[in-house]
Amino acid sequence: MTMHSRRVAQKLNFLLYRPFLTCGAKKYVSREYGKVSAAIVDELTSALGAENVSTSVAVREHHGHDESFHSSKPPEVVVWPTNVELVSKVVGLCNENAIPVIPFGTGTGMEGGVLAVQGGICINLTKMDQVVDVSPDDFTATVQPGVTRMALNAYLRDTGMWFPIDPGADASLCGMAATSASGTNAVRYGTMRENVANMEVVLPDGRILHTSGKGRATKKTVAGYNLTNLFVGSEGTLGVITQATLRLYGIPESMVSAICSFPDIKSAIETTVQILQCGIPIARIEFLDEVQMDACNRYGKLDYRVAPTLFLEFHGSEKTINQQVTEVGFSSGDVVRENGGTDFQWAEDEEERKRLWQARHEAWYAAKALAPGCTAYSTDVCVPLSKLSEVIVESRKDIEAAGVKGPMIGHVGDGNFHALLLAEPTKPDAKQTVISLAKSIARRALSVGGTCTGEHGIGLGKRMFLEDELGAVGVAAMRMVKRAFDPNNIMNPGKVLPSGDDDREDGESVKLQ
Amino acid sequence: MTMHSRRVAQKLNFLLYRPFLTCGAKKYVSREYGKVSAAIVDELTSALGAENVSTSVAVREHHGHDESFHSSKPPEVVVWPTNVELVSKVVGLCNENAIPVIPFGTGTGMEGGVLAVQGGICINLTKMDQVVDVSPDDFTATVQPGVTRMALNAYLRDTGMWFPIDPGADASLCGMAATSASGTNAVRYGTMRENVANMEVVLPDGRILHTSGKGRATKKTVAGYNLTNLFVGSEGTLGVITQATLRLYGIPESMVSAICSFPDIKSAIETTVQILQCGIPIARIEFLDEVQMDACNRYGKLDYRVAPTLFLEFHGSEKTINQQVTEVGFSSGDVVRENGGTDFQWAEDEEERKRLWQARHEAWYAAKALAPGCTAYSTDVCVPLSKLSEVIVESRKDIEAAGVKGPMIGHVGDGNFHALLLAEPTKPDAKQTVISLAKSIARRALSVGGTCTGEHGIGLGKRMFLEDELGAVGVAAMRMVKRAFDPNNIMNPGKVLPSGDDDREDGESVKLQ
Repeated sequence: MTMHSRRVAQKLNFLLYRPFLTCGAKKYVSREYGKVSAAIVDELTSALGAENVSTSVAVREHHGHDESFHSSKPPEVVVWPTNVELVSKVVGLCNENAIPVIPFGTGTGMEGGVLAVQGGICINLTKMDQVVDVSPDDFTATVQPGVTRMALNAYLRDTGMWFPIDPGADASLCGMAATSASGTNAVRYGTMRENVANMEVVLPDGRILHTSGKGRATKKTVAGYNLTNLFVGSEGTLGVITQATLRLYGIPESMVSAICSFPDIKSAIETTVQILQCGIPIARIEFLDEVQMDACNRYGKLDYRVAPTLFLEFHGSEKTINQQVTEVGFSSGDVVRENGGTDFQWAEDEEERKRLWQARHEAWYAAKALAPGCTAYSTDVCVPLSKLSEVIVESRKDIEAAGVKGPMIGHVGDGNFHALLLAEPTKPDAKQTVISLAKSIARRALSVGGTCTGEHGIGLGKRMFLEDELGAVGVAAMRMVKRAFDPNNIMNPGKVLPSGDDDREDGESVKLQ
Repeated sequence: MTMHSRRVAQKLNFLLYRPFLTCGAKKYVSREYGKVSAAIVDELTSALGAENVSTSVAVREHHGHDESFHSSKPPEVVVWPTNVELVSKVVGLCNENAIPVIPFGTGTGMEGGVLAVQGGICINLTKMDQVVDVSPDDFTATVQPGVTRMALNAYLRDTGMWFPIDPGADASLCGMAATSASGTNAVRYGTMRENVANMEVVLPDGRILHTSGKGRATKKTVAGYNLTNLFVGSEGTLGVITQATLRLYGIPESMVSAICSFPDIKSAIETTVQILQCGIPIARIEFLDEVQMDACNRYGKLDYRVAPTLFLEFHGSEKTINQQVTEVGFSSGDVVRENGGTDFQWAEDEEERKRLWQARHEAWYAAKALAPGCTAYSTDVCVPLSKLSEVIVESRKDIEAAGVKGPMIGHVGDGNFHALLLAEPTKPDAKQTVISLAKSIARRALSVGGTCTGEHGIGLGKRMFLEDELGAVGVAAMRMVKRAFDPNNIMNPGKVLPSGDDDREDGESVKLQ
C-alpha cells in the first residue's frame, strides 16, 4: 500500500468508527492503531533532522518506562522536536495515520504514564528547554517543556522569587502540569492545579491552543471554561503541553525546620489537624512512620528516635516564623505537647535545617535499601483529614499481616500518604502480594470518601479504580471530554480511561518488572 | 400536533441536526427551540406540584434579569424543584423537547447570565436550601443550591469555621460556583476555583454527575480530568449545579483593618505590588479612586480624604497580625511611607473596623447615587499586576474624556478592577457611550495580556471579546466541550459562547434597560 492509499484507508476507517465514537457508546470500540512505517520515519527525519529521530533499541527502551513498577513498553520511534511547530507537525502526522503519541519529559512519573502500551511515537520534549519569560512584578514565569523545576529555580535565583511545588524528583514543569504534581509544599502553596496560569498545548489535530489566551497570565480570569485546569492532570491524553506559565512566590525571608516524635500514629495526625485548624500557615508537614524512621537510621547511619515523626517547615519573615514555631511547639498550651509529642527540635540555619530533615529527604532510598534488589510500589491515597489516622493505622496493620516491608510517608497536611511496598526478590509471589496490598489500601481510602491517587495520577495502574471512585457517570463524562478532543484516541492511549479492550481490572494485566 | 408526535418530530429534528453539531462545524446551526406548550406545563405541574410551577407575568419578569445592565428577558415558565431527582426530571423533559433550561439562584449576577434569551424554563433552585453536611476536621461543608454565603456563615458560627469568598452580594454558593465568583478576600483565600472540592451536577441528558465522585472531598485528587473546575465558571451552560462541597477555613483569631491615602493611583498600586512581593499574607487589599472616595463622602456624609485610597485587612493570630501591620505601615522603612502614603489608620475592634471600611462597603450604592435614576455598568477587567496602574490611569482618562461619571474600585491584589460607568438618564445616548467606554477598557486590558472578565463572567455582554481573548482555537476548544456535554444546546443557550445566530458583536444587540 502506498503511503497515500494507506492514509485514505485510515481516514475511511475513522469515518466508519466515528459514529461509534461520538454517539455515546460507553467504551471505545476495539481498533487497530497504525504502525510507524519506514515511510513515516522518513517523513519525521526529513521534518526534524536525523539527529532528532531514533528507532534504536536502547533509546526506545529508555523511553518505555518511568519510575513505576510497570515493565517497559518501548515506543516504536522517539523524536525530539525543537519547537512547537514541529510538535504540531508530528502530532498531525500521527492523527492522519492513527499512530499513538506519547509525550515524554523526564520519565519520573510513578504510574506508567509514558509506557507505549499501544506502540507509537514518543515525543521527547527535553530539547525545548528555554525559560521564555520571567515577570517578577507579575509573579509569573513561562517555560518550555524541557525546563525542570530545579533548573527554573536556579534560573530565578537572583530575582528573589521561586516556584515552590516540589514532587521530589527534578521533574519537568510541563510534565508536572500534565500529572498535576504536588508534593511536600502543597499544604502551603497548593498543587499544579493552583499554580499554572496558562499553557500552550498542541491538540490531537495539530492545532495550537493557549488555554488562557496567548500571552495572558492574570491572577484571576473567568472568561469561558477553565481549559487550563482541564489540561492540568490530563496525563498526556488530551494534547501535548509545549509551554506553561507558572505562578511564582517571593523566596521567604526566613525558613525554620522542625521535627518531633509521637507515641503513636494517631497523636501525630491529631497534631497535624490541630495545627491546620489553628490557621498556622505551615509550609510543609510530613509524616514518617516508625518503620520508615528505622529505615532512615539504617540507611543514613542516623540516630532519630524510632517512632512516628512529624517533619515541619515554616516560611515567612523572621518574626512571624518565630511566632508560628512558638504556637506549634514551645508555649505551655502548645499543640505538640498536648498530643504527647517529644524531642521537639528546630533549626533556622540552612545546614542545620538540612541535617534535621535528612531522614525525610532520603526516605525513598532508605526504604528501597530495606530489601536490596527489590522493586517498590508507592501507593498514593488521599483521604479526608478526619479519616487519616484510622486509614494509616489500618493500612499499617494490613502491611504487617501480609509480611511485606512497607514504610510509610505522608504529606499529612493534605491527607495524602504513600506506603512504599517492597516486592523482595527472595519472596515467592512478592509482586502479586504487593499489588493486592496496594489495592486494599486504595479500596479502604475509597470507602471513607478518599481518592486512589492524591498526586501520582491514574496512568496505567489505577484505571481499575476510576469507576469506583467517580461513578459510571463520572467516567462517562471524562470519556465525553476525551472523545471531544481526541476522537481518534491517538493521545497516550490506554492511560487514565480504560480502553475498549480493557476490562475494569485491566490495570493488573500490565506486566510488572 | 399531539405531544407524542411533537416529541417524535423533535427527536427526528435532533438526529438531522446532530451531524452538524458533532462533526466539527464552527458554529451551531441556526435552530428552532421548542416552546413550552400547555401539555409540558401540565407535565411539570404533575411532577412538581402546582405550587412549584408558575407562568405568571410577574414571576417570569422577576426571573428574566439579574443585577446587570441588560433589559429583562423572561422565561416562559419558572419551576421550583425540591430535590435533585426533580431537577433531573425537568432537565430531561427539556432535552427531549428542545427547550432551553436556565438555572436561577439569587439573580445577583452581573453579566445577564439568567436572561432567557431563547425562552425556555427557568429552574429556581432556592427551595433546595439545606446545609447537607459540615465536617470541621476536614474543613468542608456541603450545601444545596439555595444556600447563600451569608446563610452558610451564619450556620457555621459555632464551629469556628467560615467560608471566606465574598463577592459582595449575598449570592447562592452554587451560583457563585457557576460563575466562579471571587471578590475582596480572593487575594488570600483564592476564588471559587480553588474552594470547591466537589459538585453534584445534573447533566443536560438528566444524568446526575458527582464531579469528584459521590461524597468525596479530599484536599487533593488527581483521579482523571478535573471535572470540578470544568463546571466551576461554566455559567449554567453545561449542567445544573445541585450541590457543592466547599473548603472552609478557621475564623481568624484576630482581624485588623487599615486604610491609607496616596498622592496618585500609581503609588497606591506600587504599594500593593510591594506588599505582595514581601509575601505579607494580606487578606484584602482594595483600591478606591478619588472619584469613588468623593462619592462615598457624599453618600455616607463622611470625611475621608479625597484621594486614591487603599483599604487593607489582615487575618491571623494577634501577634502575627501586629507584625504584618508593622511591615506594611509603621516601621521606618515601611512600604506605605516609601510610596508617599499618608493618613495610615488601623483598627482591631469590630465596630471601629466597620467604620474604617464604611466607604468600601457602600461603594456600589454611593456610586449609583452620583446620578439618581441612572443605570450602571460595571466593567470587570483583570490585568497583570505590572500593567495595573497604567491601565487604571488610562481608563480614568478615557472616562473623563467621555464625560461619563465612572468611579473605580479594584481588587488590586489580584489585578482586577471595576469602573462603575453610569448612564445618566438626562444625557442623550448615555447608554451607548457607556458601552463604548466599557469596550475600550476591555480592549486595553486585552492588549496588555489581561482578561475582559476577572470575576463577573462572560454571560451575554462579553461574548464579543471571547475570541480576541482566547483565540480561534481557544473558542473552538470551548465549543468542543459544550457540544460534548450539551449536543442539543439546551443549557442556558446564548451565554458564554456566541450562538450560530449571533455575530461576534452580538453582545451589543441585546437591548439595555
